Amino acid sequence: MQIEKDLQSLIDAIPPLDVTAMEAAASRQKTLTKPPGSLGRLEQLSVHLAGIMATPRPQIRHKVIVTMAGDHGVVAEGVSAYPQEVTAQMVYNFLHGGAAINVLARHAGARVVVVDMGVAADLDLHPDLVDKKVAKGTENIARGPAMTREQALQAVLNGAAVVEAELEKGLDILGTGDMGIGNTTPSAAIAAAITGRAPAEIVGRGTGVDDAGLARKIAAVQRALAVNRPDPHDGIDVLAKVGGFEIGGLAGAILAAAAHRKPVVVDGFISTAAALIAVTLAPQVRPYLIAAHRSQEKGHQIMLQWLGLPPLLDLDLRLGEGTGAALAMHIAEAACKVLDEMATFAEAGVSDRNT
Amino acid sequence: MQIEKDLQSLIDAIPPLDVTAMEAAASRQKTLTKPPGSLGRLEQLSVHLAGIMATPRPQIRHKVIVTMAGDHGVVAEGVSAYPQEVTAQMVYNFLHGGAAINVLARHAGARVVVVDMGVAADLDLHPDLVDKKVAKGTENIARGPAMTREQALQAVLNGAAVVEAELEKGLDILGTGDMGIGNTTPSAAIAAAITGRAPAEIVGRGTGVDDAGLARKIAAVQRALAVNRPDPHDGIDVLAKVGGFEIGGLAGAILAAAAHRKPVVVDGFISTAAALIAVTLAPQVRPYLIAAHRSQEKGHQIMLQWLGLPPLLDLDLRLGEGTGAALAMHIAEAACKVLDEMATFAEAGVSDRNT
Repeated sequence: MQIEKDLQSLIDAIPPLDVTAMEAAASRQKTLTKPPGSLGRLEQLSVHLAGIMATPRPQIRHKVIVTMAGDHGVVAEGVSAYPQEVTAQMVYNFLHGGAAINVLARHAGARVVVVDMGVAADLDLHPDLVDKKVAKGTENIARGPAMTREQALQAVLNGAAVVEAELEKGLDILGTGDMGIGNTTPSAAIAAAITGRAPAEIVGRGTGVDDAGLARKIAAVQRALAVNRPDPHDGIDVLAKVGGFEIGGLAGAILAAAAHRKPVVVDGFISTAAALIAVTLAPQVRPYLIAAHRSQEKGHQIMLQWLGLPPLLDLDLRLGEGTGAALAMHIAEAACKVLDEMATFAEAGVSDRNT
Repeated sequence: MQIEKDLQSLIDAIPPLDVTAMEAAASRQKTLTKPPGSLGRLEQLSVHLAGIMATPRPQIRHKVIVTMAGDHGVVAEGVSAYPQEVTAQMVYNFLHGGAAINVLARHAGARVVVVDMGVAADLDLHPDLVDKKVAKGTENIARGPAMTREQALQAVLNGAAVVEAELEKGLDILGTGDMGIGNTTPSAAIAAAITGRAPAEIVGRGTGVDDAGLARKIAAVQRALAVNRPDPHDGIDVLAKVGGFEIGGLAGAILAAAAHRKPVVVDGFISTAAALIAVTLAPQVRPYLIAAHRSQEKGHQIMLQWLGLPPLLDLDLRLGEGTGAALAMHIAEAACKVLDEMATFAEAGVSDRNT
């Protein structure tokens, strides 16, 4: 099938990090006017970004957050505190600049790309809305697969196409974001399927369900896994059986960014579920990922541990949309600027350590 | 003594937080297009800043980091990995824009105010260098008091005067920063004196001393406390006996900012020692403090716990200069922008929670 071949081509295009650039960045850090290592994770991150971007002094100019929206049939199980129509309403809010991601992206100097991956409504045309809709919402994962295998492949390739288009406009770093009422439930199902941990360890309160809602979410995830039996080693199978269109789109966006040596700042619970799919499809994508933050959503830490990613921020966020990624982009940019702009001991005429 | 009266006037000018503004901010947060509480510490911080700045929708335009420099007689005990001349050299580096604080302040959109509080050299005149020198470095605290009581008072008032002058140029939020070879040693002594914890629990490696250097630092702090017997309830006594000029200046800067309802983003180990002095002098200053980050320096967590301040960031920083404060200012500004700029459910036509 052509679509399978296209995915394989995308995966095959992901290069390893550039070790020479990383060594050059690490060497330069030691010459800058500060005790070596005293900027901690900023220093490590600068070396990491040098390896991703294959240059000893990486610079971040164009920052892009893709916020992908989709709806979820599993809302029929009573898993969300909000009605499904909110997904479409929030898409309009994104397009009008009033949502949290708009505020935080403006603050970070990033542009937001709003993508309809599978909203369960015919959205009004808008010049800034990218239409990559695969279908009007997924099926109910508690009763059968979310989508067909072909739709899952299409979602991933559509997401990759979004990033390919943005690269032409300028993209030095990608942040991932999501919108979709009910989408913590498929994300938890993905996490349970891939990490092997029990749903009760992973499912959290999402937008804020009460105890009865939480019990319904756990039961829905358990049923989704029992009914669908996703193969944890086949990312497309997991996505098709218990995923979502925006999650598949984000997995594709991640793969495309890595294929072009662009760092990916992964937002919270839903984005990290997309990262689990991406890494299952292509383990070589993992070094391109930067975990923006540790979400308040229960299972996020389990997912970050499986990925081996230490989060940059820990601010009790649980909103999604890319809000944590926007905040973390400022840190990533700071890391690059320290490496690029600081004076060396020799340039500044500062004495180095006593020997 | 007039100088004692001036300090008391400064302390008496610090108002309580504005509870009405905090309630208005908290109410507005609940109307914004996101699940309530989903922006975690950003939401809490926005309410906190409303109370500090006495307005329901605080805005941060002018960001200022004061980086105060001083030298320390205790370097004679072999407590630093760098020679004392580095303090003056780094002041020139700050003035030329090549240090980490310059890079990170530019990134945050903050201006850096470089202050000579007590560098052990005659510094070249420079239009951007604020001369508030109390003396050319402190005495060796391992052998006697760092400074006289009058010098300690003068350091605090000089620091306050720096902030008073910056307020006229525009200052909505203050970040604290320090430079001073050897200054983790007096900071640890201040922390041990005020928190009552043992020097070995607090003293860390500073700029990176080896095991022998660490042992010398612990011994120096133990001797400083034994020789000087600072009164933990008298902030000026602690500052005079085991402190430093830049630490006193920062304590004064903190008090002055609070007296004018400006939030203070406290940087790392040395700035937090200054905050301990400020809070000991005026407990009502505590609500004006925002802990920028958890430093890698050993005793910082103990100091933050004594102050009751949860840090915003945890990036293994241990540089000082105000670098952590610059990064955290971006978060504080983000908090204000979310509160001020996000659309409400009504404005955006988004359905609120299921009831």
